[in-house]
Amino acid sequence: MLKKQFSSTFLGCNKSFLNSNIIIFGAPFDSTTSNRPGTRFASNDIRKESYGLETYSPYLNLDITDYNICDIGDLELCLGDTLKTIKIIKRNVKKIVTKNKIPIMIGGEHILTFGSFLAVLEKYSDINVIHLDAHADARESYLNNKYSHASIIKRIWEKIGDNRIYQYGIRSYEKNEFFWCEKHVNFIKNIDNIDNIILNKPVYLTIDLDILDPAYLPGTGTPEPGGIQFLELLKIIYTLSSKLNIVGCDLMELSPIYDISGMSSIVSAKILRELILSLNLKKKENFFNE
Amino acid sequence: MLKKQFSSTFLGCNKSFLNSNIIIFGAPFDSTTSNRPGTRFASNDIRKESYGLETYSPYLNLDITDYNICDIGDLELCLGDTLKTIKIIKRNVKKIVTKNKIPIMIGGEHILTFGSFLAVLEKYSDINVIHLDAHADARESYLNNKYSHASIIKRIWEKIGDNRIYQYGIRSYEKNEFFWCEKHVNFIKNIDNIDNIILNKPVYLTIDLDILDPAYLPGTGTPEPGGIQFLELLKIIYTLSSKLNIVGCDLMELSPIYDISGMSSIVSAKILRELILSLNLKKKENFFNE
Amino acid sequence: MLKKQFSSTFLGCNKSFLNSNIIIFGAPFDSTTSNRPGTRFASNDIRKESYGLETYSPYLNLDITDYNICDIGDLELCLGDTLKTIKIIKRNVKKIVTKNKIPIMIGGEHILTFGSFLAVLEKYSDINVIHLDAHADARESYLNNKYSHASIIKRIWEKIGDNRIYQYGIRSYEKNEFFWCEKHVNFIKNIDNIDNIILNKPVYLTIDLDILDPAYLPGTGTPEPGGIQFLELLKIIYTLSSKLNIVGCDLMELSPIYDISGMSSIVSAKILRELILSLNLKKKENFFNE
Amino acid sequence: MLKKQFSSTFLGCNKSFLNSNIIIFGAPFDSTTSNRPGTRFASNDIRKESYGLETYSPYLNLDITDYNICDIGDLELCLGDTLKTIKIIKRNVKKIVTKNKIPIMIGGEHILTFGSFLAVLEKYSDINVIHLDAHADARESYLNNKYSHASIIKRIWEKIGDNRIYQYGIRSYEKNEFFWCEKHVNFIKNIDNIDNIILNKPVYLTIDLDILDPAYLPGTGTPEPGGIQFLELLKIIYTLSSKLNIVGCDLMELSPIYDISGMSSIVSAKILRELILSLNLKKKENFFNE
Amino acid sequence: MLKKQFSSTFLGCNKSFLNSNIIIFGAPFDSTTSNRPGTRFASNDIRKESYGLETYSPYLNLDITDYNICDIGDLELCLGDTLKTIKIIKRNVKKIVTKNKIPIMIGGEHILTFGSFLAVLEKYSDINVIHLDAHADARESYLNNKYSHASIIKRIWEKIGDNRIYQYGIRSYEKNEFFWCEKHVNFIKNIDNIDNIILNKPVYLTIDLDILDPAYLPGTGTPEPGGIQFLELLKIIYTLSSKLNIVGCDLMELSPIYDISGMSSIVSAKILRELILSLNLKKKENFFNE
Amino acid sequence: MLKKQFSSTFLGCNKSFLNSNIIIFGAPFDSTTSNRPGTRFASNDIRKESYGLETYSPYLNLDITDYNICDIGDLELCLGDTLKTIKIIKRNVKKIVTKNKIPIMIGGEHILTFGSFLAVLEKYSDINVIHLDAHADARESYLNNKYSHASIIKRIWEKIGDNRIYQYGIRSYEKNEFFWCEKHVNFIKNIDNIDNIILNKPVYLTIDLDILDPAYLPGTGTPEPGGIQFLELLKIIYTLSSKLNIVGCDLMELSPIYDISGMSSIVSAKILRELILSLNLKKKENFFNE
Repeated sequence: MLKKQFSSTFLGCNKSFLNSNIIIFGAPFDSTTSNRPGTRFASNDIRKESYGLETYSPYLNLDITDYNICDIGDLELCLGDTLKTIKIIKRNVKKIVTKNKIPIMIGGEHILTFGSFLAVLEKYSDINVIHLDAHADARESYLNNKYSHASIIKRIWEKIGDNRIYQYGIRSYEKNEFFWCEKHVNFIKNIDNIDNIILNKPVYLTIDLDILDPAYLPGTGTPEPGGIQFLELLKIIYTLSSKLNIVGCDLMELSPIYDISGMSSIVSAKILRELILSLNLKKKENFFNE
Repeated sequence: MLKKQFSSTFLGCNKSFLNSNIIIFGAPFDSTTSNRPGTRFASNDIRKESYGLETYSPYLNLDITDYNICDIGDLELCLGDTLKTIKIIKRNVKKIVTKNKIPIMIGGEHILTFGSFLAVLEKYSDINVIHLDAHADARESYLNNKYSHASIIKRIWEKIGDNRIYQYGIRSYEKNEFFWCEKHVNFIKNIDNIDNIILNKPVYLTIDLDILDPAYLPGTGTPEPGGIQFLELLKIIYTLSSKLNIVGCDLMELSPIYDISGMSSIVSAKILRELILSLNLKKKENFFNE
Repeated sequence: MLKKQFSSTFLGCNKSFLNSNIIIFGAPFDSTTSNRPGTRFASNDIRKESYGLETYSPYLNLDITDYNICDIGDLELCLGDTLKTIKIIKRNVKKIVTKNKIPIMIGGEHILTFGSFLAVLEKYSDINVIHLDAHADARESYLNNKYSHASIIKRIWEKIGDNRIYQYGIRSYEKNEFFWCEKHVNFIKNIDNIDNIILNKPVYLTIDLDILDPAYLPGTGTPEPGGIQFLELLKIIYTLSSKLNIVGCDLMELSPIYDISGMSSIVSAKILRELILSLNLKKKENFFNE
Repeated sequence: MLKKQFSSTFLGCNKSFLNSNIIIFGAPFDSTTSNRPGTRFASNDIRKESYGLETYSPYLNLDITDYNICDIGDLELCLGDTLKTIKIIKRNVKKIVTKNKIPIMIGGEHILTFGSFLAVLEKYSDINVIHLDAHADARESYLNNKYSHASIIKRIWEKIGDNRIYQYGIRSYEKNEFFWCEKHVNFIKNIDNIDNIILNKPVYLTIDLDILDPAYLPGTGTPEPGGIQFLELLKIIYTLSSKLNIVGCDLMELSPIYDISGMSSIVSAKILRELILSLNLKKKENFFNE
Repeated sequence: MLKKQFSSTFLGCNKSFLNSNIIIFGAPFDSTTSNRPGTRFASNDIRKESYGLETYSPYLNLDITDYNICDIGDLELCLGDTLKTIKIIKRNVKKIVTKNKIPIMIGGEHILTFGSFLAVLEKYSDINVIHLDAHADARESYLNNKYSHASIIKRIWEKIGDNRIYQYGIRSYEKNEFFWCEKHVNFIKNIDNIDNIILNKPVYLTIDLDILDPAYLPGTGTPEPGGIQFLELLKIIYTLSSKLNIVGCDLMELSPIYDISGMSSIVSAKILRELILSLNLKKKENFFNE
Repeated sequence: MLKKQFSSTFLGCNKSFLNSNIIIFGAPFDSTTSNRPGTRFASNDIRKESYGLETYSPYLNLDITDYNICDIGDLELCLGDTLKTIKIIKRNVKKIVTKNKIPIMIGGEHILTFGSFLAVLEKYSDINVIHLDAHADARESYLNNKYSHASIIKRIWEKIGDNRIYQYGIRSYEKNEFFWCEKHVNFIKNIDNIDNIILNKPVYLTIDLDILDPAYLPGTGTPEPGGIQFLELLKIIYTLSSKLNIVGCDLMELSPIYDISGMSSIVSAKILRELILSLNLKKKENFFNE
């Protein structure tokens, strides 16, 4: 008789942790955000706005209720203490990947990817990273902080070195950052050739939602005009999911407060739905392969 | 390790239904709202904004975690069909009052009070109604609809007749409505004398939050300037709770979308906390009396 | 000397009802809206924002002041009572179509199309329906309500059966809804071939403005990312108007409150202007044919 | 059958100009506004928001439908040309006062008062001015403009000299402006003594709505904290109306865009209703006196 | 140790006036704006939002810190007096162009272009004007005002006559305005052929930001749906800058208040950065030519 | 000829550091904010909105231009690293207090007070703290963080012990926090007796702006209904300034983004103006005493 508290999980993904092969969690933290904070509210708002979405995708002809997916809620992080927060995330993601489940983190700001990435790296030492973003995020440090959202790629690179990070969509750099990226990071020219580049390697996919043009997602801390359209991002996700072995991913930098129409959160929720479904599509084959 | 999904219940009120003596539920319905709709989002937003409140009240020196209170979530109502919705509410409130629990409904628009009132009336045939509001809500019908938010008092009066409805805070009437009220409804002059008026009778307390001045609560469908201040409303609630035998109540007409600062929802959440705590204060004695 | 009260009619369309061949009216009702209400304000806001538009269209080289068009204002509907509201709309549209005038309804939520459609059906028993939308709206019922915005296509189908409803732009379905649509409704593949499909039949055109991508129209109850662009919608309207015999139409589901920039209302107003002008273009020929 | 286009006049005040003794008009102009423009939208928004108000005042036990009041709409002004605009207003107000009707102008910015004042002055050479405001508006010029909203009192003083301007509520001055006001303008200490001060003289009442505290009216160009409350302003208006012979008045500086809750417009509409009704109360006596 | 007050100049452009070859200034004036005012805040907001942009352009591989550019702040204009304001702008721009520097004005409303244009015309009597806009701005007058934002092209044409004004992006006209433009103004069909059209002539480039579709820039006074996308505008600017001898330019009609996401200001800031950099690219050659 | 960039300092306070006896600085940091972040924008927005205020106070009959006050801008802090940030603030405030100047910090979140307090404590070992706030801020830690905004009073107490902290306005506590405060902190009952309590001691005054009721200041991270009114806060500041020897102060927790009307920033700016002026009033005497 009572209405299900739909918004407490993303699209009703309330299967048990044990049985699920995809685990969603929120990471509400934005302490190093240099411009406009607010990504801490992203996971909550994506859950709430998922109410307006169907569980079925006509694009993929799949329904999220047919899969075992568990939204375990938000991690309790330590606002104002970035290193501690990264450790909490790492510890939690480790529990997920050691059970061969795929973690999907809803940020929060981009430095949090470091926690998730480190856990995945421990299990998959040959991990590659695909980075969809408007900003290169490759500074040595930012505002005297090495663990800043603007340095996540530099921190990851220190762990895995050249030729293992692939960037797409980047349209904002410092001058020196641009030259550094040219040297140490791969620019994806053609998404459709991605499988020729990353052969049989496990992949961590990190998506900064500001890769989208602000017309499609104004609700982010540092909107950067000139981005891709919503349907382009969907296609990229389908291509990556179908061709690569994605073992972890995240959806970062939605900041709902800057878009009171709610559109940015709905866009993020729909991307998350399609990401989950396309991972499941792939996963079936993977299960056979394993 | 995971952060509790705090916002899924009001202030963490997740005790069992069985053990609780106060039952909170949301009634997300605003189909007859004549001016600005949006009260359907009130219960959800009050829960969310309760995150910024403490469970402890320094006014009453009571803590909500010390009591058995159960927020059972939102009822599933039938948007566009007012009569059906009133029935659903009545059916659910009946389950609460027959167990001697106090129902607190978070509206939703004011006509929903009718469902809750009818269930309470069946148990307490000598019920009196206290109506805190900016508007008299005593029209025969509104926009050709007898079951309109603007007619709730007329509908209640048809059930219990003269001398059992007490109004306070009203500052908006149609001319005829004003004359009708003068004849059939009591105006509370002095809240402190309320116990002399309503002797030992069970009371249903219905609060339209627009009794507050719009400066304190702009987020409502039909703001009416010239209302009371926040602390005045708290004092009224303390007085009513301590002196009367309240057996059911509701908090209606918050419409969060019209106040993007969130203040209106926080005000409503704090009023709800104080209402619950002051009912508990009283309840203890009641338990002895019974 | 006094400034004309421009906003009281759409783009100054204040010719007499008698002389006009196109009749505009508003239908301010959103009682069954399941997600975010507010479409009741659409007609008023479209009129207000039409102030920033010219009456002349450089696309069509036509000026709205050269035609007889009458905006008769908003119907007085019955909030909270959907069936009664549908009847009021039907009764009013009947007065328009029996005089061989074309009704253009500004919604309001999508179930209202049923009232307008029924009136048109009585005059044109061989009517076909073209449905531009993001959502299929083909559920048996929604939240226990058969007359819900999510069921309008199902209700229409019950009246006219298979092969007479044509959908375009749909990108959101329940799984079962999708299979039902595959069976009972035509998907328009290529708008340019539309005249080969609907031969000489009268057509009712219903446009849910959320067919547009939320980047172009965030102000709607349930934005669905991945939609078409503004200019694409204009082209579709030109094609449909020039090739088909449209005898009634509507523009539904604008909800201005969710877009405080006003863009969504301006977009809707410009679409309405172009729709009116392209109908007039066609109408001239029709007059000869009749 | 059609819903009356209620918002096209204030509270349905659509009696004929000829028969009405109070004439309302809008003056949508804000070209000299130095801080935040937008008062041009005030009259339209007050009309629109009057939908949520009753025509009956329980404070005064009067109903606006019982009086002959005509809202003639907005004047067509010349944005960017202040002098021309003042002339247009003067010409129109003259038509009103020569017929012994009371003009009520809805601003627009405060310099527009000059146009209305000049017309009234021509008829009533012994006019006194009561000025309710947060700002003294007594600068010689502002940003090189003598006809600025910040200079209206200086301009009026140049016409009528010392001892005929009475100010109340002012809490913001330049240092020199303060000393000038001390010398040339009367500060009202006690509103209740006002009749002893202004004996039998015709009065022009100009109300800058920012006399209210921003908590009650945030929607204005230059909010000045520390103002009076809504009910205080009502009482002042009742006192002034009942004791003085008001022959013209205005309500200036509402800027709706800065308050998306709509509260500021509703506050203004309610003040306008009470102002009109209290003028009518007085007017009856006046009719006998004449 | 103190953080630089970055927002007080655009992107830190604080080189000396003397050494700079590009001079930026703000013109905060919107007194003739007929629809929604607010462009007076554009220059300030563009400076503030430039904080989120890099000084480096990956599109052009240029960094703004490598050039001598001076943001001299806002001119002190005379709100409410359009002619005086135009004169102030003319006087200031003259000081810039007589030193062979390029002025870039940040509007403010479009009539202000007249001041800047007149100063440029005095130095370059064979000047041509390129006009990027959604509206033709070619009315004889608007609301009785010859110096209205809607008349800027007509005023310029009176000075330089036929065949020297080139328009692009226009999608809104009055009927007569359209026919006038057909006769007296050139429509740019193909931006890439622009150099064949304007041979070796100095060019004044005036950009009304509403040439962009409102999806990309909702924050403007009169949004006109159906415009170009952000990247299209960038490409047009690159083409014009590289092929023509631009001696003055402006960026008009941003109205930040209507886009609380901040996107519109960021879009404008990025366009300004790319415009400056592409002018510098060209300028180098120009220096050799002189 | 150019307009002064007024908003780059608070109310034009641009005297030299050397000559000024009051030094204003901004501390844009909100990394530990547990609810809604955004206080980092407070200092900038207060400067911007000070444009709408006069430099003259009619309350005190003083003009800020008559005093030597220096707004040195914002400190460059380290977002995400709270301890480092506190150190930067301490280092900078030390430079101010060692020169016998009074620092006024514009927060930023409340934990930043610790940096300023520590610097003041080094110079004035007998310092007392007056704490105006809605929240007690006396938790041992919050979300595992000892240096949280919710713990500032506990951290200060660890340095100076019982009987040296005085609180006023507090209306929100955890239960344990309340009991701790009862034991270790003084509650100010009557502000007018404050000089009898704190005899001749140097005082650090820390103001959390949420002491104001949200009706007056909705723009803060955790609004707490039931607060004091604007004029009450002014009177408290006058009383404290005139009776005590204030050697340092701060104005914390304005979060402008949550109040798009701008009212909250204007309220804060006016409080800052009155605080500065009342300190100067006192300072004069102090200069004689020294």
